[in-house]
Amino acid sequence: MSSILGVRALLFDVFGSVVDWRTSIARDLSQWGHDKGIGIDWEAFARAWRRQYQPKMQEVRSGKRGFTLLDDLHREALETLLPEFGLSHLSEAEKSHINQVWHRLDAWPDSIAGLWRLKSKFIIAPLSNGNVALLSNMAKHAGLPWDLNLSTQWFNAYKPQPQTYLGCARVLGLKPEQVMMCASHNDDLNAARQCGLKTAFWPRPTEYGIEQTIDFEAEQAWDIVAKDIRDLAQQLLDR
Amino acid sequence: MSSILGVRALLFDVFGSVVDWRTSIARDLSQWGHDKGIGIDWEAFARAWRRQYQPKMQEVRSGKRGFTLLDDLHREALETLLPEFGLSHLSEAEKSHINQVWHRLDAWPDSIAGLWRLKSKFIIAPLSNGNVALLSNMAKHAGLPWDLNLSTQWFNAYKPQPQTYLGCARVLGLKPEQVMMCASHNDDLNAARQCGLKTAFWPRPTEYGIEQTIDFEAEQAWDIVAKDIRDLAQQLLDR
Repeated sequence: MSSILGVRALLFDVFGSVVDWRTSIARDLSQWGHDKGIGIDWEAFARAWRRQYQPKMQEVRSGKRGFTLLDDLHREALETLLPEFGLSHLSEAEKSHINQVWHRLDAWPDSIAGLWRLKSKFIIAPLSNGNVALLSNMAKHAGLPWDLNLSTQWFNAYKPQPQTYLGCARVLGLKPEQVMMCASHNDDLNAARQCGLKTAFWPRPTEYGIEQTIDFEAEQAWDIVAKDIRDLAQQLLDR
Repeated sequence: MSSILGVRALLFDVFGSVVDWRTSIARDLSQWGHDKGIGIDWEAFARAWRRQYQPKMQEVRSGKRGFTLLDDLHREALETLLPEFGLSHLSEAEKSHINQVWHRLDAWPDSIAGLWRLKSKFIIAPLSNGNVALLSNMAKHAGLPWDLNLSTQWFNAYKPQPQTYLGCARVLGLKPEQVMMCASHNDDLNAARQCGLKTAFWPRPTEYGIEQTIDFEAEQAWDIVAKDIRDLAQQLLDR
């Protein structure tokens, strides 16, 4: 593992890797819906919403439209989703509350303990397609102890565009090989590796629930393959 | 104090307000100089260096030159300073070590306890002319528990340019009046107030040592006037 001795900063994918968006959304909105008398399948709602994530960002990455905040892409997707779930009648305040659920996601059980340990040695930051406000509010809500917030918003781009990974190394004053991308998604790590970053993987086999078809295991020889973030900390610190 | 009830985020000036650059530099470089057999007046050196801070940034703010990182402005100033202090013979590695001293500043005694308390209720971030890497390394070194890093580098500008204050509110998804600028410098607060931010002041009467001529007290009726950051926390939380 000598190749990773020079690593100074760890960048974390967030949605799915650090926080459990699917069950967080279902839990949050089920309670809210219960209070409102709205009884839909919020877990299916969360999955349907997430299916629009990559297509929406692709409109930006392809140049078809200018950079648009993830909060706004989420809202556009939400507008198409509400009729499908019989929720066209919701008020603006209710739609806004639903859209903000991405700011209220909870961590996987191992994330916070692992991040606190890693923070003692490394600069830790999200490198997420979530916008700055989303990631800040989520960190406060979930208790994620980030050192700084490296939303891709700062680079007017979306992962896996290379300027996001390289931009982080640049603003931190580090060489790409001094930065490690940490994620549960092989495609994210592949893009980071193409930019010269180190890589760490752990699986989240229940991220998508019954719809999960990929990312059950490491598809390349990533620099570290861990069981979860607590195990990542153990591998990086107890050597 | 009802006017500040809606505040969600606190932005902190750093150099002088949160960290004591003058005695930190003198302490750090005196020890280093002692080991090297270099016995100059490092406290005078620190003050002379800082005197070039505003003029150097003014070159950028005026449009005379493009945006340049504070690390690079510090280095340019350092090059003019070394001959004055009889240090022209230093190696590149030694000059680089000296320039990085701005990444190794220590907090005033009240800062960390106060910031931890404030972090429990507010988003806390530096809004500093220090570049992202400088502020990240300083936070790790000094133990500053920032939620995110709002270097003016993100906005390709330097305080007191309005796009720095307004840019922070924008990326946080907040209105200017939901953001409070917190500083020991009246001019910083004045610029923030012009942009619609709330303001908090505490004095640092020894910031410049024997050269201090201003900022002994609040020059306007800032929204909060405190004794230090611990007192700021008490005023904001114990109401």
